[in-house]
Amino acid sequence: MKIIRYERCGNEAYGVLDGDSVRAVQGSICSDFKVSDEVCKLDQVKLLAPVQPGLIVGVAGNRVLSPSEIAEHGHDHSEFKEPVIFFKASSSVIGPLDNIVIPAASNGLLIGPEVAVVMRREALQVSEDRALEYILGYTSALDVSVRGLVADPFAARAKSYHTFCPMGPLIATDLDCRALRVTCRHNNVAVLDMNTSNWLFSVASVISSISQFMTLRPLDAVLMGSLGDLLGTADGDVVEVEIEGIGRLRNTVVRS
Amino acid sequence: MKIIRYERCGNEAYGVLDGDSVRAVQGSICSDFKVSDEVCKLDQVKLLAPVQPGLIVGVAGNRVLSPSEIAEHGHDHSEFKEPVIFFKASSSVIGPLDNIVIPAASNGLLIGPEVAVVMRREALQVSEDRALEYILGYTSALDVSVRGLVADPFAARAKSYHTFCPMGPLIATDLDCRALRVTCRHNNVAVLDMNTSNWLFSVASVISSISQFMTLRPLDAVLMGSLGDLLGTADGDVVEVEIEGIGRLRNTVVRS
Repeated sequence: MKIIRYERCGNEAYGVLDGDSVRAVQGSICSDFKVSDEVCKLDQVKLLAPVQPGLIVGVAGNRVLSPSEIAEHGHDHSEFKEPVIFFKASSSVIGPLDNIVIPAASNGLLIGPEVAVVMRREALQVSEDRALEYILGYTSALDVSVRGLVADPFAARAKSYHTFCPMGPLIATDLDCRALRVTCRHNNVAVLDMNTSNWLFSVASVISSISQFMTLRPLDAVLMGSLGDLLGTADGDVVEVEIEGIGRLRNTVVRS
Repeated sequence: MKIIRYERCGNEAYGVLDGDSVRAVQGSICSDFKVSDEVCKLDQVKLLAPVQPGLIVGVAGNRVLSPSEIAEHGHDHSEFKEPVIFFKASSSVIGPLDNIVIPAASNGLLIGPEVAVVMRREALQVSEDRALEYILGYTSALDVSVRGLVADPFAARAKSYHTFCPMGPLIATDLDCRALRVTCRHNNVAVLDMNTSNWLFSVASVISSISQFMTLRPLDAVLMGSLGDLLGTADGDVVEVEIEGIGRLRNTVVRS
């Protein structure tokens, strides 16, 4: 099933996408919701970010490095015994076609394409075996950060500016995330073609690990980590991420 | 006004405290709520954390160091041109008398007593002059972290374990925070006696600064930063924080 969040005639709603038809959701997308008979076409709605997370948890360095990358970075990631995590403010979320705004007095942005996990049930100390039962589905996201902030040792500001978490276009609920192709285009040039099989920690492993020390709640989002080096972007750039089974996120970078 | 959150006969509610009488709040504490005629005594209720924040933002290093501290640390904090911030998971919040649990396989905890600001209105790009208008009030908190986690460069795990953010006992809405006495006792020994006049950044400055890059929402909490060195604690320790006009937070540290 493909779930979207959209605006139509000034109202926001969740809907289920079937081809190019949208059927409004009745009830919470985290429980046994109904789908109404009300149908409209996808081009009659404005797509919003498919989720407004309470909390956004990110995973850093979650990929197996190539031999040349290990040589370049001076280390591999095998020192990571569990996922390295960070938080982004949930007010940074924007929709799949919205603009990413460069803050004044900044020199540019770094962007990492991501698979985002959307939670369905409260997860506290869940085992890796059962972790997937707590998940609603998956969407695409960009982890945007501003370059070279001083006095930001926790990277809390750098990653949390408004517009720094594009998400969408939809939540795919029946996706096997173990081997999905993730591609990224920068100003229409292919810059990344990777596969989630290259993650160091799987979705189940990440959700289980986070749930050991904190509670993940319905609609919280977990960004699984970029599969390639971060991309430097500047005013006017267009960044497109496409994930097999989810679709395309397309955001333009603009000056504030 | 003094606002508490409490449990009575299995129900959770907000209440206004008047001496030792509690009157239930009708409506949201962030809007023009009514106070019911229903009165009970404080000793008939179980105090809960006075707020369940959506987001917890912390400020690090927010105090003027003494000459001896500058000599010891090798630097002062004057390099901070704006508040250094971090996030704590909101699932780490516990009540004013609850136990702080040391995670298995950890050697001990570090604890900093804090004034916590509770937001009343959505704050986005508010000026320092008007920042206080967005605030509901103030409570006490402990910023607990676990010592020496490896592979946690953003301190996201270290500060977010369950029970790592005791808050309470109440939200004081009519408090001038510019010169409040903050004391801390560790196993009944006075270990800290400081004043909020020693903050590097005021409440108005911190709220305004955070609101420039992200949105603070109603009931979000901002921990203003410890006024003294962090306190090392271990199994069995009792930590008490008392803030003028707010009251006492008293938490016992236990092994998981």
